[in-house]
Amino acid sequence: MAVEHIHMVKHILVGNDQIADINRERFNTDRVFTINVMASPGSGKTSIISKTIEALHDKMTIGVIEGDIEGSIDTNTVLAAGANDAVQINTGGNCHLEANMIQKALENIDLAQLDMLFVENVGNLICPTHWDLGQHLRVCILSTPEGHDKPIKYPQMFSVCEVILLNKIDLIEWVDFDLDLFYQTIAALNPTALVFEISCRTGKGLPIWVDWLYARKHALFEA
Amino acid sequence: MAVEHIHMVKHILVGNDQIADINRERFNTDRVFTINVMASPGSGKTSIISKTIEALHDKMTIGVIEGDIEGSIDTNTVLAAGANDAVQINTGGNCHLEANMIQKALENIDLAQLDMLFVENVGNLICPTHWDLGQHLRVCILSTPEGHDKPIKYPQMFSVCEVILLNKIDLIEWVDFDLDLFYQTIAALNPTALVFEISCRTGKGLPIWVDWLYARKHALFEA
Repeated sequence: MAVEHIHMVKHILVGNDQIADINRERFNTDRVFTINVMASPGSGKTSIISKTIEALHDKMTIGVIEGDIEGSIDTNTVLAAGANDAVQINTGGNCHLEANMIQKALENIDLAQLDMLFVENVGNLICPTHWDLGQHLRVCILSTPEGHDKPIKYPQMFSVCEVILLNKIDLIEWVDFDLDLFYQTIAALNPTALVFEISCRTGKGLPIWVDWLYARKHALFEA
Repeated sequence: MAVEHIHMVKHILVGNDQIADINRERFNTDRVFTINVMASPGSGKTSIISKTIEALHDKMTIGVIEGDIEGSIDTNTVLAAGANDAVQINTGGNCHLEANMIQKALENIDLAQLDMLFVENVGNLICPTHWDLGQHLRVCILSTPEGHDKPIKYPQMFSVCEVILLNKIDLIEWVDFDLDLFYQTIAALNPTALVFEISCRTGKGLPIWVDWLYARKHALFEA
């Protein structure tokens, strides 16, 4: 049974990657820098996207695709933060976003009007890693209360992302998070990863992350 | 593609439920109270299982099946806490445990020697809900830093579990967790759920949970 399942998933992944490439071509044509944000439930995906939009929405137009099992709370949150456009995908039980869901969401987004697009994946440290959505950048969030051992336990997520945001850094004194061990693990798993220590609650580290993201968008399309 | 995938998953789920029933029969024969523990990564599954074992291992023999993508850190942790037996399942990328994985793990466990068996599922709030393992009790852990909105966003998990452990209650002052809203959501989703507020760090609430679990085991097999 497991083998049949794996064959089917592989077949679907090939189809997924083709649609992801089509999505990426559309993002490139309209010069929309697209970021796939992945993390566990409750790590702070929506908060970080909202804070980043607040910091950048005077300089650029930003859209968000929100992936959730159900509900549309997050769409309202990012619109309140200043997003120029937001579309909700309800996966109906699916534990990750797939490229065809993004393709479908793009029917309701005018890419020509956007500079940047966040895709907030479903809260899950495992399955979203397998599904290319056509993004330019994959960002993984880890919050300090989750523990420094998460990269060891979920190595694929922390290997494939170019950026790791270590959120809730303000709580580090109250939880057993070994920062040295965390950096050692990341250095072994993903030596080129950029790590930003941030707190959405206190604002610590957010300007550095925001400036880097802004520069990265320009490096990609204006160089 | 999505439809094919769903058909395949349904087919597998039927097979899964049959194996789960076989597992449950084995647990009943040997009177082993079996608990499927599910949660996001970093909610405190291993810590809670360890603390529960520490509190109960003088009164009963306890085994643990640890489900992880890879690694065996947690198996060592629960053995150090006093578990009489522990078996590691590495799912190799699979985001949840399935009944056949438990069946396989039972080849290495002498159920006749156990009173209680914890199954620590893979850290994931979504997929594990679909897969019956043959357990008697499903427990979901939510930690306060994850936020009070998680039951709204991941309703199936919080609907199917008989017990919800609200962990890291000691951090509630430092995070934006609305306890009233949390209880309102649970009351709507799962009115018969038992909620225990606990902290593995301070020990708060653990004795009440442990006493309840002990009584529940006796009610099941000694009545």
